[in-house]
Amino acid sequence: MTGMNTAGAGLTITPLKIINDDRGAVMHMLRADAGVFVGFGEIYFSVVNPGAVKAWKRHREMTLNLCCVSGAIRLVVFDAAEGTVREIDLGPGRPETYNLVTVAPGLWTGFTCIGDAPAVLANCANIPHNPAEAEGLPADTNGIPYTWP
Amino acid sequence: MTGMNTAGAGLTITPLKIINDDRGAVMHMLRADAGVFVGFGEIYFSVVNPGAVKAWKRHREMTLNLCCVSGAIRLVVFDAAEGTVREIDLGPGRPETYNLVTVAPGLWTGFTCIGDAPAVLANCANIPHNPAEAEGLPADTNGIPYTWP
Repeated sequence: MTGMNTAGAGLTITPLKIINDDRGAVMHMLRADAGVFVGFGEIYFSVVNPGAVKAWKRHREMTLNLCCVSGAIRLVVFDAAEGTVREIDLGPGRPETYNLVTVAPGLWTGFTCIGDAPAVLANCANIPHNPAEAEGLPADTNGIPYTWP
Repeated sequence: MTGMNTAGAGLTITPLKIINDDRGAVMHMLRADAGVFVGFGEIYFSVVNPGAVKAWKRHREMTLNLCCVSGAIRLVVFDAAEGTVREIDLGPGRPETYNLVTVAPGLWTGFTCIGDAPAVLANCANIPHNPAEAEGLPADTNGIPYTWP
């Protein structure tokens, strides 16, 4: 798979294609023959209002494949083992932010809408939603060294 | 799967949930344990500008799973064997139009954006994109008894 980029343990950023024409566009996300693909469990979407924060969550079994298909998202990934925080801006408005982010189990994630309109974040995950394999912390927890705007 | 509705040979409409809260929403699309699921090949998105028409296409192998996640789409399905045309309005703006439409191989499909903003149509298909298994006709073909606005 071209352009794949390991962005830290358990985190992979894959540039995606947008093919524009006068009617609109076709935007790629994930194929079963992609290097990052580990199985299909569920595809669902998170809509985030401007300024709203959805954080924090950590999965024990789910590998996330995240892609922002409308609006603009700031994704934040915290690796508790390494003590590192990574911010990744996502959205189809600029080619350099139309990326697939693959997040392995064990990393903390949160995200906020950084645009003027609600954003839509797709997650094509390897297992269906199952609250028993996930844990959460409030957005303003002291346990994660990141302050949301 | 609750609420599944066979809407003609090869066509199934499944109502989908939108779970709203003050931060935005979670919008369901497709799980591997759904009754309509026949395999994962690719998830991609078609962006359609207001008034633009993307038509017509017929697949020999691909089962489409279509869901409009932003804006509003009118999907049109033509069954050449039955001579029937079906219009299906899709979009998250109204609960009654947030549906998954499963289209079996052999049916002609086309769609247009019926809102004021570009619409985003997701397709979670059982095989990856392969032009060799699809055929097309122009939107204004005489072969399909439907006139686009």
